[in-house]
Amino acid sequence: MMIPEEVRAAARTQALTTTAGLARGYMQANLLAVPQEYAFDFLLFAQRNPKPCPIVGVLEAGQYSSELLPGGDIRTDIPGYRVFRDGELIAEPSDATAYWSQDMVAFLIGCSFTFETALLDNGVPVAHIEQGRNVPMYRTTIPTTPAGVFSGPMVVSMRPIPAAQVADAVRITSRYPSVHGAPVHVGDPAAIGIADLTQPDFGEAVDIPAGTVPVFWACGVTPQAIVMESKPSLAITHQPGRMLVTNARDLEYQVP
Amino acid sequence: MMIPEEVRAAARTQALTTTAGLARGYMQANLLAVPQEYAFDFLLFAQRNPKPCPIVGVLEAGQYSSELLPGGDIRTDIPGYRVFRDGELIAEPSDATAYWSQDMVAFLIGCSFTFETALLDNGVPVAHIEQGRNVPMYRTTIPTTPAGVFSGPMVVSMRPIPAAQVADAVRITSRYPSVHGAPVHVGDPAAIGIADLTQPDFGEAVDIPAGTVPVFWACGVTPQAIVMESKPSLAITHQPGRMLVTNARDLEYQVP
Repeated sequence: MMIPEEVRAAARTQALTTTAGLARGYMQANLLAVPQEYAFDFLLFAQRNPKPCPIVGVLEAGQYSSELLPGGDIRTDIPGYRVFRDGELIAEPSDATAYWSQDMVAFLIGCSFTFETALLDNGVPVAHIEQGRNVPMYRTTIPTTPAGVFSGPMVVSMRPIPAAQVADAVRITSRYPSVHGAPVHVGDPAAIGIADLTQPDFGEAVDIPAGTVPVFWACGVTPQAIVMESKPSLAITHQPGRMLVTNARDLEYQVP
Repeated sequence: MMIPEEVRAAARTQALTTTAGLARGYMQANLLAVPQEYAFDFLLFAQRNPKPCPIVGVLEAGQYSSELLPGGDIRTDIPGYRVFRDGELIAEPSDATAYWSQDMVAFLIGCSFTFETALLDNGVPVAHIEQGRNVPMYRTTIPTTPAGVFSGPMVVSMRPIPAAQVADAVRITSRYPSVHGAPVHVGDPAAIGIADLTQPDFGEAVDIPAGTVPVFWACGVTPQAIVMESKPSLAITHQPGRMLVTNARDLEYQVP
């Protein structure tokens, strides 16, 4: 069992496929960093879209560390980054330092990996962990609420849940509103614009066990879909499923 | 029983002492409006201080209405305003239009009046409503987390709760994290820098019934204490206890 510092150290030096299941009990976070000129618009976007974009921390321009990653560096401590210029993916470096301009503001966004520990502790199976894969994520037709220059579709993560445990999964995850909270959709993928569960837009497909229902949660990869649509001059994100592992404990994000 | 539109209409034309207890079941909100140049710093301050400053809506520059006050005007629909220049209170108009510059961004902040309905529905008495007064509010020695130009002390509201019902009050209000949530302090006022409960810094003192414990919740008047300390060039707020009554229902803010 790794502690968060060990995962971040590994992220600096090794190729971690995914952080799913690592440092269990510690909060993992999505990243979106944009130049200061876009910072108010994105923070407002997050305020208006708390299910896909629950902000758990903000590193202001010139700040690379915080109590979420003590002694760490946001530009190096994630296993993989994506760099977007004018909405186009131009690089996927393992170190983002060379792309990080002086005025970048970094937003850390809650990740549904956080509530997976609670699901497992309550006996609800999490298929992608059992199968040793990244979680499957899909672009949907669910719109977000625009703010300033930012608008676009919601991205969701999917977990196949045994029919008898869907209610438990709703109840348990609703206690974590800071990490996407309750599902946004249960059942028919087509109703939210997903044509084929075996073809996720991000992450990896999972085998869907018999007797399960696909359950969809708002996903912190949503900002990447928003960046592709809204085309800010520069944006740096994590690679989906390869998260920042923080020193905050999952339980700090549980209510009530 | 007034509906929100009627309270807002009354606020435009009459002198309402307080909105406490009016339009029960509908969310009331605190106001802080600042020029655009301060907007990111304040939104970040609110993100870092969610207990005193839970944002429930943002009106961007030039926007005076939203789904929270359909057909209304944020500059006129609150019973009383306060105008601060460089941190100094310079006016308390009943109509803020003359002071509202073109680039003002208005932040609406959850108000603990919202969870009072839930307290009453659960048989927990709310002294200031019983006594027909505004809630008492106090500046404390509890620090907030700074952001940009904004820093200063937390303001709290106080309700005397029967000792046997303190646990109920905690349990019930913790289900409303968007409107200050669980108390920040139970018991000894001196421990958080309050010398005399009969001398509130904002609102009105209440008679404290025998057998009750003073219970303190983070308060949406905190931004006013922050403005006095941080001295932005212009800030417009509501007068404490005289809130914006919105069309959102309290229950929308309940979790889980």
